[in-house]
Amino acid sequence: MRAAVLPEPGEIEFEDRPRPEADADEVVVDVGAVGICGSDLHYYQHGRIGDYVVESPLVLGHESAGVVSAVGEDVTDHAVGDRVALEPGVPCRRCEHCKSGHYNRCPDVTFMATPPDDGAFAEAIAWPADFAYPLPEGVSLEAGALAEPVSVGVHACRRGNVGVGDRVLVTGGGPIGLLVADVARAMGAGRVAVSEPVERKRSLAAARGAAPAIDPESTSVPETVRSAFHGGADVAIEATGDPRALQSCIDAVRRGGTVVAVGLDDEASLSLDVVDLVDAELTLAGSFRYANTYPAAIDLIAGDEVDATGLIDFRSPLSAVDEALERALDPSVVKGLVERDPA
Amino acid sequence: MRAAVLPEPGEIEFEDRPRPEADADEVVVDVGAVGICGSDLHYYQHGRIGDYVVESPLVLGHESAGVVSAVGEDVTDHAVGDRVALEPGVPCRRCEHCKSGHYNRCPDVTFMATPPDDGAFAEAIAWPADFAYPLPEGVSLEAGALAEPVSVGVHACRRGNVGVGDRVLVTGGGPIGLLVADVARAMGAGRVAVSEPVERKRSLAAARGAAPAIDPESTSVPETVRSAFHGGADVAIEATGDPRALQSCIDAVRRGGTVVAVGLDDEASLSLDVVDLVDAELTLAGSFRYANTYPAAIDLIAGDEVDATGLIDFRSPLSAVDEALERALDPSVVKGLVERDPA
Amino acid sequence: MRAAVLPEPGEIEFEDRPRPEADADEVVVDVGAVGICGSDLHYYQHGRIGDYVVESPLVLGHESAGVVSAVGEDVTDHAVGDRVALEPGVPCRRCEHCKSGHYNRCPDVTFMATPPDDGAFAEAIAWPADFAYPLPEGVSLEAGALAEPVSVGVHACRRGNVGVGDRVLVTGGGPIGLLVADVARAMGAGRVAVSEPVERKRSLAAARGAAPAIDPESTSVPETVRSAFHGGADVAIEATGDPRALQSCIDAVRRGGTVVAVGLDDEASLSLDVVDLVDAELTLAGSFRYANTYPAAIDLIAGDEVDATGLIDFRSPLSAVDEALERALDPSVVKGLVERDPA
Amino acid sequence: MRAAVLPEPGEIEFEDRPRPEADADEVVVDVGAVGICGSDLHYYQHGRIGDYVVESPLVLGHESAGVVSAVGEDVTDHAVGDRVALEPGVPCRRCEHCKSGHYNRCPDVTFMATPPDDGAFAEAIAWPADFAYPLPEGVSLEAGALAEPVSVGVHACRRGNVGVGDRVLVTGGGPIGLLVADVARAMGAGRVAVSEPVERKRSLAAARGAAPAIDPESTSVPETVRSAFHGGADVAIEATGDPRALQSCIDAVRRGGTVVAVGLDDEASLSLDVVDLVDAELTLAGSFRYANTYPAAIDLIAGDEVDATGLIDFRSPLSAVDEALERALDPSVVKGLVERDPA
Repeated sequence: MRAAVLPEPGEIEFEDRPRPEADADEVVVDVGAVGICGSDLHYYQHGRIGDYVVESPLVLGHESAGVVSAVGEDVTDHAVGDRVALEPGVPCRRCEHCKSGHYNRCPDVTFMATPPDDGAFAEAIAWPADFAYPLPEGVSLEAGALAEPVSVGVHACRRGNVGVGDRVLVTGGGPIGLLVADVARAMGAGRVAVSEPVERKRSLAAARGAAPAIDPESTSVPETVRSAFHGGADVAIEATGDPRALQSCIDAVRRGGTVVAVGLDDEASLSLDVVDLVDAELTLAGSFRYANTYPAAIDLIAGDEVDATGLIDFRSPLSAVDEALERALDPSVVKGLVERDPA
Repeated sequence: MRAAVLPEPGEIEFEDRPRPEADADEVVVDVGAVGICGSDLHYYQHGRIGDYVVESPLVLGHESAGVVSAVGEDVTDHAVGDRVALEPGVPCRRCEHCKSGHYNRCPDVTFMATPPDDGAFAEAIAWPADFAYPLPEGVSLEAGALAEPVSVGVHACRRGNVGVGDRVLVTGGGPIGLLVADVARAMGAGRVAVSEPVERKRSLAAARGAAPAIDPESTSVPETVRSAFHGGADVAIEATGDPRALQSCIDAVRRGGTVVAVGLDDEASLSLDVVDLVDAELTLAGSFRYANTYPAAIDLIAGDEVDATGLIDFRSPLSAVDEALERALDPSVVKGLVERDPA
Repeated sequence: MRAAVLPEPGEIEFEDRPRPEADADEVVVDVGAVGICGSDLHYYQHGRIGDYVVESPLVLGHESAGVVSAVGEDVTDHAVGDRVALEPGVPCRRCEHCKSGHYNRCPDVTFMATPPDDGAFAEAIAWPADFAYPLPEGVSLEAGALAEPVSVGVHACRRGNVGVGDRVLVTGGGPIGLLVADVARAMGAGRVAVSEPVERKRSLAAARGAAPAIDPESTSVPETVRSAFHGGADVAIEATGDPRALQSCIDAVRRGGTVVAVGLDDEASLSLDVVDLVDAELTLAGSFRYANTYPAAIDLIAGDEVDATGLIDFRSPLSAVDEALERALDPSVVKGLVERDPA
Repeated sequence: MRAAVLPEPGEIEFEDRPRPEADADEVVVDVGAVGICGSDLHYYQHGRIGDYVVESPLVLGHESAGVVSAVGEDVTDHAVGDRVALEPGVPCRRCEHCKSGHYNRCPDVTFMATPPDDGAFAEAIAWPADFAYPLPEGVSLEAGALAEPVSVGVHACRRGNVGVGDRVLVTGGGPIGLLVADVARAMGAGRVAVSEPVERKRSLAAARGAAPAIDPESTSVPETVRSAFHGGADVAIEATGDPRALQSCIDAVRRGGTVVAVGLDDEASLSLDVVDLVDAELTLAGSFRYANTYPAAIDLIAGDEVDATGLIDFRSPLSAVDEALERALDPSVVKGLVERDPA
């Protein structure tokens, strides 16, 4: 089968690899759709993210869905032909984090497209059956692939304990920010504001319900939020990685409010005013990937509470994944999608 | 001013009373709309609910909204002309329940239309300003009055910790059951089933999104739910007071599931299988009135996530409140509303 | 090696079995101490508990600790000679309960001494390394074996959300009740009352700090608790399985209080007053086994916050396990312990 | 009656003031003991803390206990002669923070010894009865006065969700740090480390059970903690206000750990690494004063779980409060106490 690999930064090659076989507890999935994530672009451009370095040709892509083409001998709840979304991180199942339900914190996770583990820009992949989630009728493979970034949103909103009637600020109108905003509304947030400097993304946020949609380069985000929300946000979720956005979140929440940081940027550091933290009794929570989110994420997509496919700017066949990656580098692009080559 | 009082069961009289004046921390509200609740009907028919006995003429009605006509000298956040919903229970503010945020458990609460405290079937009422919540544009007084039963729904869903992707069963398609179902969906429940024996109410539940809407007299609720939800409800909320419905809830939830009892009936007792409770590690939670729900309830109504006015079967002027109570006794009626007499 | 098996009710035989070998992720443990639990006695007397029926000779015993004598090839954090306590239930690691941290609810658990899975009344046992917990210096093997009932106590107190300053009632002065009381104090409960009809156990409860220690056959438990605690318990934990005790718990808690049921008895059913549940906004929670408790349980034993060995009435060698079971049937016995045969 | 006032920084004068009278819901308390807090010293030295400026002679002292000498007409649960501890912050009881149980966040709180509200360095004080908590036999007035800093500890540990078996780091061995450590143990923390640069305080911490007690000037706190706790603290609580200590806390916790900031220092700001926050999924929580802690704090003192009086370095009569303040400025002093003048 064909797999697209990254031999070195900026270059994609196609390799012929043996078709994967299913271990006893695995399924083989013929990949149908894969979202392009910022981390794919970062590896593509730089060959590394922090300590994770691409040292041998790596298959990128971790937002994926497809069709089951083989099942391992112990697998009873999947059948050939089932349409599934794949959760890309499979933890050790044995450490204290795994046992206590926080498997996203497992230090021994296998995560697609993170060196040395291959991802889904390939014709097929073998994967543990319990990390392959059935898609209901009406949820397409490309929507299923986006259950991954929706999961990031579900986890971030859970970390922020978003509840009914809450006023929420989201900084960032990329795929994560927009999906966080959708999920927050689905969890009952009465009002969701989004700040985003790129006009095209900001308009998209507004069209999806952000009120207000704020340009942080021309307006004070905290002041706008405090005025719109009559006293501050209950929860603010930072989805850019920019420390200035995180500072906006801190300044925009009410006393006792919660700030969730989900955006990551290598160099980011924030000058945190400790008196603010204590005096306003804030909670500042990091949110890392997700755990126990896929069924809920797929439900939100199925119920149209989250418009995942509305993020997609373009689709590209696997055989043109190199062009797709180049195109996705444009900052006004929200989400590019790589699809199975036509037969 | 005129007030409708219950001098004895089955009889309503109108009294001329002095117009109330606002204490320093109160507002006077000209009542615009009052929902008729099952408890009003119970007092109307029987003159008592449990230990609460009508011993002198009582003004009924506790689901109310109106227009501020006077403000006390210490009140700074309300003005004459403001449209407000009134939270009918004002607690002591001093006991451990009040201090810890559970003021619905305060033993010294003043609660409208609960002997000896008068309710809102009157032209005006004086009420603590902090229990009068402004209604945003687009929320009518009749919708505002129904912030009360919506609050019951919000509190019950919070007690059940309803979250995104949850499968929820609601037993009962009266006003509380229907609003619980709406609120559960607004909090992210992926699927909400409702059981209700009265055909008209069951159809209304289905039209509002219940899937499935179950007739408990012809079908096994737990079996239907287990089949529809592939293994049991995450949360079941009982809104009838009928112990058979509560038993259905217990039988319908998955291992580790939560059952919330919000419906009340004088005689109800349940034969609880302790092995079920322990072995399935269930949580069974009572839900009593509400606390800290009004802003969220009004938000849900304003955002059309909860269709409160869709419950209203008929409207009646205050001067015909006796006929309205009689009409509301019909078991197929969901909600009757009493409105200010036309000028 | 020798193993004690139950071929039929009331009879124990010794079998020679092949010494177990360690799978890749397992350790072999030479069993040093095994507590006798009520469930062992129930199988011994009746050959079944509910739907679990002994159909072929079963090794009893699930409260165990011992010394590692072999390690599987993938095991890196255990070495031959390590002293460990064994958590007796190993879940599937794949279902939603396992993934979300509630592995005690896993339907596919392997649990020692529950048909058809053998227990620890044997010279050695092979067990997954991550369910074998190292014992610190100063914690004996017999104390380590009792990390199992301590875990039941930790889980029950967590289910009850016992916190600092809480007033707690525990019904039952057997091993679970006494350990629940210890754990509740260790979690900060200011006052812990214990009710227990058997004089010897009640005295033991009092000696361990129960105040008051109540005889439920001569005194009203709720009245005594309400008087001692000035208004009701915050949390009540039922550890007998007797529905009358559960009723006492319900009657003894304050408004908004929590009742945890941990005791199990085949026939138990309770006539639950639904009005009480709703009006007092109670929470009634089942507590089934435990998850993520062993490190904490061992810590509590090591720090002398829980006196596990103080429960032991007698010790018996494995070769006399039949006599030990007979002796443990005496209702005044709290805990019997089976030890490795002397070399 | 006599009251000690601060007319300008560094100076204490005594004024004759009219003896306070009890409003309907108040008690008058003859002050018996008042702890000297760092904030008293800060006002004494600088005449201000942040935006709070002493503009007219202010009575300092907010950690107080005494004997009820008069009760208002609506007060039913206090009697003359009762010994009580006074909670120094009385909130508005009406805002959303008060109603939801977080009254420590109330913006309209009256707080003793915070301009313009007087404190307890006086012979008597009138105070709302529900913020005067009875002291059980065996709890002295001076121990009762210290229910205030114990409350700070209870709230901080609750913010950190300290639980049974947790490994906890506390930075700072002043009164708050030492009491936080005691409370953490009382809530079940298996191991508590304390870092403190002043030798005398560090020794006191060790004597009270800190293991290890770390000198942050000669040793790396995170490395020491990671080694002692085999992988990081579950919770770290910062009680100095020094951003370097807060950084130590962040570096010392395990993945998914919680850092609570309770210490305050005017100038403190921290350079927060956002990648650390997100990648390790930390929670960073401010802790401001306390709410709903007094009964628990008094319980902990009564049960000897917290040794409050063991912090007291010296006692001084009210008439020598100026000398007492000077003496308390010595950095090796943990706690000074001001007592009623001898009759």
